[in-house]
Amino acid sequence: MRDELRVSPDRPADLPNRPTDLKFGGDDKDAGKAFVKTLYPRLFELQRRLWGEDARSVLLVLQGMDAAGKDGAIRNLARGLNPQGTHVAGFRAPSGEERDHDYLWRIHDECPRRGELGIFNRSHYEDVGIVRVLNLVPEDRWRKRYRHIREFERMLSDEGTTIVKVWLHVSKEEQKARFQSRLDDPTKRWKFNPDDLESRARWDDYMAAYTEALDETSTDYAPWYVVPTDRKWARDVALATLLIETLEEMDPQYPPEVEGLDDIVIE
Amino acid sequence: MRDELRVSPDRPADLPNRPTDLKFGGDDKDAGKAFVKTLYPRLFELQRRLWGEDARSVLLVLQGMDAAGKDGAIRNLARGLNPQGTHVAGFRAPSGEERDHDYLWRIHDECPRRGELGIFNRSHYEDVGIVRVLNLVPEDRWRKRYRHIREFERMLSDEGTTIVKVWLHVSKEEQKARFQSRLDDPTKRWKFNPDDLESRARWDDYMAAYTEALDETSTDYAPWYVVPTDRKWARDVALATLLIETLEEMDPQYPPEVEGLDDIVIE
Repeated sequence: MRDELRVSPDRPADLPNRPTDLKFGGDDKDAGKAFVKTLYPRLFELQRRLWGEDARSVLLVLQGMDAAGKDGAIRNLARGLNPQGTHVAGFRAPSGEERDHDYLWRIHDECPRRGELGIFNRSHYEDVGIVRVLNLVPEDRWRKRYRHIREFERMLSDEGTTIVKVWLHVSKEEQKARFQSRLDDPTKRWKFNPDDLESRARWDDYMAAYTEALDETSTDYAPWYVVPTDRKWARDVALATLLIETLEEMDPQYPPEVEGLDDIVIE
Repeated sequence: MRDELRVSPDRPADLPNRPTDLKFGGDDKDAGKAFVKTLYPRLFELQRRLWGEDARSVLLVLQGMDAAGKDGAIRNLARGLNPQGTHVAGFRAPSGEERDHDYLWRIHDECPRRGELGIFNRSHYEDVGIVRVLNLVPEDRWRKRYRHIREFERMLSDEGTTIVKVWLHVSKEEQKARFQSRLDDPTKRWKFNPDDLESRARWDDYMAAYTEALDETSTDYAPWYVVPTDRKWARDVALATLLIETLEEMDPQYPPEVEGLDDIVIE
């Protein structure tokens, strides 16, 4: 899965031409949903080892257009994770205090501690994404951020965090359908924000910005993966598989047991 | 002052051969102390402008051997600063939570916000200083930190923080005298820590470690200055002058005044 979805010099991001509708885990929804359930016990066991080992951490960064399914992806992934040892951080428009610091300040603060699996719902990539498209800072300033971000992630990696970055790739048509269903369902209307239509109107600008951002920041130590997300079950299969493959490569180990446990009698 | 004290490729740190006893501001203590007082109003006004401008920040990093005078330097410098707008952070041995993150996590958290003058009493340089000398992490790990630190400081600089790093350079003889005076004075005995003798015993190792660290991380955007500190008053003159020169170059401006102030009548 990682090789298939990774952004690399050999296979640049090229978001406008990347598929949004691959079928991972089956040919239909029922098969896909059944398959993803078979993955969660393995993910759960690997996360348990990561937590027990208490030496390294994993950071999953999720980016995508509105309605790409970031919230749903996290909700479903959580079925294969122990909340203890999982740290989810969402990044909305920065608060006053956050704006008073560099853009990586609030990101660094939320980075997972040893043993944790951290999940970012949006991230520092907004600072070269929406910030660029809406011209919130001048180009000579945001353009320097590619390097900052590469080096920040290098540091995290050198110090024990394995980084997995995922662009949830939804089509413009599927976004339309999801927006419409939010409008049609009284219990989902709160998720609809008229600002989302502005982002939708600038779809091509966002594709261009993120295509460049992914190419600039997909590194050996912090690669980007483009996960097709028009089908939610295929997205869930891909995400769980990416994490499993990553954790299997890390191969976390329970600490060596204390000697003499066999002789202990609990009275 | 900056040109005289800066560490650069043309003039490497070479701590074992750098002077520790220059006389800035006068030939004796009385003259020096009188002179430094003349500097504080200028420093105060410049910091006020930085705070009023509310756009950029300054970070002063202080490192030095035990008894080099970091605490005293900050105490005296504060006479030329408004506590509002000044943020002092001291870094001792990392706590449990701090150890659970990368070494820059706690540092980043304490970085000054817009408008602030931040002062670090020790810093991330401990992570290539004592950590190296006492072998707290393997060399292949700490050696990567030079690059991390250069790039971290580059990011801070690009995002609006002017960084001034000062090595307070005390001689081994002067440290001996200061340790002895701590032992002799019941009100200073709490400052004496037997561990300090271990650091003293490894003096040459520390000089080698910091000589390399300063050379590796003295950059255009975050230069190191070596301030001779055997004479406390000369140290104070040098520090105040470095900050004044730095702030003068930044030239912070009060924001443009709101129009129509002249017409306002307070009733």
